[in-house]
Amino acid sequence: MPTLLLNRKDISGLLTMPDTLKVVEHAFRDWAQGNGKMPPKAYLVLERGDFRAMPAALPGAAGVKWVNVHPQNPSQGLPTVMAIIIYNDPATGYPLAVMDATQITAYRTGAAAAIAAKYLARPDSHTLGIIGAGQQAHTQLMAHLELFKFRQIKVFDLSSAAVAKLIDSFPGYPIRESSLAETAASDIVCTVTPSRVPVLKKEWVLPGTHINAIGADAKGKEELEPSILKEAMVVVDDLTQASAAGEINVPVSKGLFSVDEIYATLGEIIIGQKPGRKDQKAITVFDSTGVAIEDVAMAKLIYNKAKQAGNYLTVNLIEE
Amino acid sequence: MPTLLLNRKDISGLLTMPDTLKVVEHAFRDWAQGNGKMPPKAYLVLERGDFRAMPAALPGAAGVKWVNVHPQNPSQGLPTVMAIIIYNDPATGYPLAVMDATQITAYRTGAAAAIAAKYLARPDSHTLGIIGAGQQAHTQLMAHLELFKFRQIKVFDLSSAAVAKLIDSFPGYPIRESSLAETAASDIVCTVTPSRVPVLKKEWVLPGTHINAIGADAKGKEELEPSILKEAMVVVDDLTQASAAGEINVPVSKGLFSVDEIYATLGEIIIGQKPGRKDQKAITVFDSTGVAIEDVAMAKLIYNKAKQAGNYLTVNLIEE
Repeated sequence: MPTLLLNRKDISGLLTMPDTLKVVEHAFRDWAQGNGKMPPKAYLVLERGDFRAMPAALPGAAGVKWVNVHPQNPSQGLPTVMAIIIYNDPATGYPLAVMDATQITAYRTGAAAAIAAKYLARPDSHTLGIIGAGQQAHTQLMAHLELFKFRQIKVFDLSSAAVAKLIDSFPGYPIRESSLAETAASDIVCTVTPSRVPVLKKEWVLPGTHINAIGADAKGKEELEPSILKEAMVVVDDLTQASAAGEINVPVSKGLFSVDEIYATLGEIIIGQKPGRKDQKAITVFDSTGVAIEDVAMAKLIYNKAKQAGNYLTVNLIEE
Repeated sequence: MPTLLLNRKDISGLLTMPDTLKVVEHAFRDWAQGNGKMPPKAYLVLERGDFRAMPAALPGAAGVKWVNVHPQNPSQGLPTVMAIIIYNDPATGYPLAVMDATQITAYRTGAAAAIAAKYLARPDSHTLGIIGAGQQAHTQLMAHLELFKFRQIKVFDLSSAAVAKLIDSFPGYPIRESSLAETAASDIVCTVTPSRVPVLKKEWVLPGTHINAIGADAKGKEELEPSILKEAMVVVDDLTQASAAGEINVPVSKGLFSVDEIYATLGEIIIGQKPGRKDQKAITVFDSTGVAIEDVAMAKLIYNKAKQAGNYLTVNLIEE
């Protein structure tokens, strides 16, 4: 039995945002219903970067994502983050596929935020603000465009070149460069920066805003003034990860925010165990750290699509 | 930059026990000197089996082993255990190789035991007893034969067919099937069974014996009567893993043995921080759980040998 090898180009040809939205929402649903397993990420912290092992299982799917973060890589012409998923048959453990997971990670992160917005943003949301115009801004925008009709999309980044690149990637949409304060004054705001000091000020945020806090994914990172969290309905993808490495990690470590103040997990809201937005004037925050069940669900999708397409490289990795 | 793909056949052609002994001892040395990192294994426990993610780094090497244990697999013609290593450049995180790790695991486990025997068994040890004649018995025997000259090798297994297969694999050696009690009465005893009740009785073990307790690698497994541990000089590969899943896990959970009674780690003995065998009459026990630094060290060895040999499959996993 061969193992499929799917590289970045293969994945590109198989990945669509509508599929991703469906699969990621289903993964959160399964997991919230107790039909998934996800032990904590294992961190390997080295001098020039770190690695994370992210194992998880869902009905009919198991696997691990192994992903690095090496901030100095671009100076050597290498990406900062490279990710590989080993995708297994949960019934036998057989490694069905080894695949590049860099784009999978970008797509599923965008999808999780848009799904959170579906449940937490005002249904009549018609402006989107994106703070940070890097790679993740592209998939945030793609995902939200699938679920909302925006009259205005505002983008802020310290680099106008990054903003221009993002705008050029979405021709025909009402998207323009804005100041930080203007961008913050949107119905849905996505923060996708690597910041370690709050970039989003409380005074800029309008009543009724939904915020997707995406950038903070490690200890010490934060993008929102803690006073926003104190007032908001805070929803997390995973309680443990959010407290340790998500948007709330710095406020929690400083005693400014308590884990008890978290309203719900995204899964609890999706399965209706807790209601989503209740008040048109409330501020809602989704604290996204990225969870391995998203990756395993995506690996299953991509594996099945590759098998259907029939166009892939294989290797007999395990057999003699 | 391509990623090397090394399957079972490739690995077979590159793996030798003398190399393995050198590399595994060096890995324990590096680790004991603080030049390695190994976060705890992450366990993903499912209905029909489990998976373990084992990340580690050593100087110039990083990676993760992803390994399953599915006991019902043989009935479907699949191996119980299948393992893959993703081997990375620690400086950039780049995935240099993806390799089958089933034989690597078998070899490094045999080597670790023989290295423990080198430091803990009597130098004049001339009989070897192997309890359990499965796959791991083969690499235990291979490894010990590199470091000792045995006049007699005794093997016990519930299956005489397994014993015969082992004997046939080592023609020309003084190896024969023995009773359990006879096998236990050897200078060096390797227990390599999947037992959950002690198979090695205290009354059979002679003064001066060294025991490699290999089989217990998960909660609930044990091979030695706890009274052996109480009297012995107990050395572990890793304190945390041994307490949770090694030979001592059941006695520790029952309060029959305390972590404080562990004499040393194998690394501490290799670097001379603690002396090995001090007394010709002492019983010594090496509690082996299998550690990820062994796997990463082996991955580095195999990667370098494959590059030298120049005969390997590659895939552009990460690049477009």
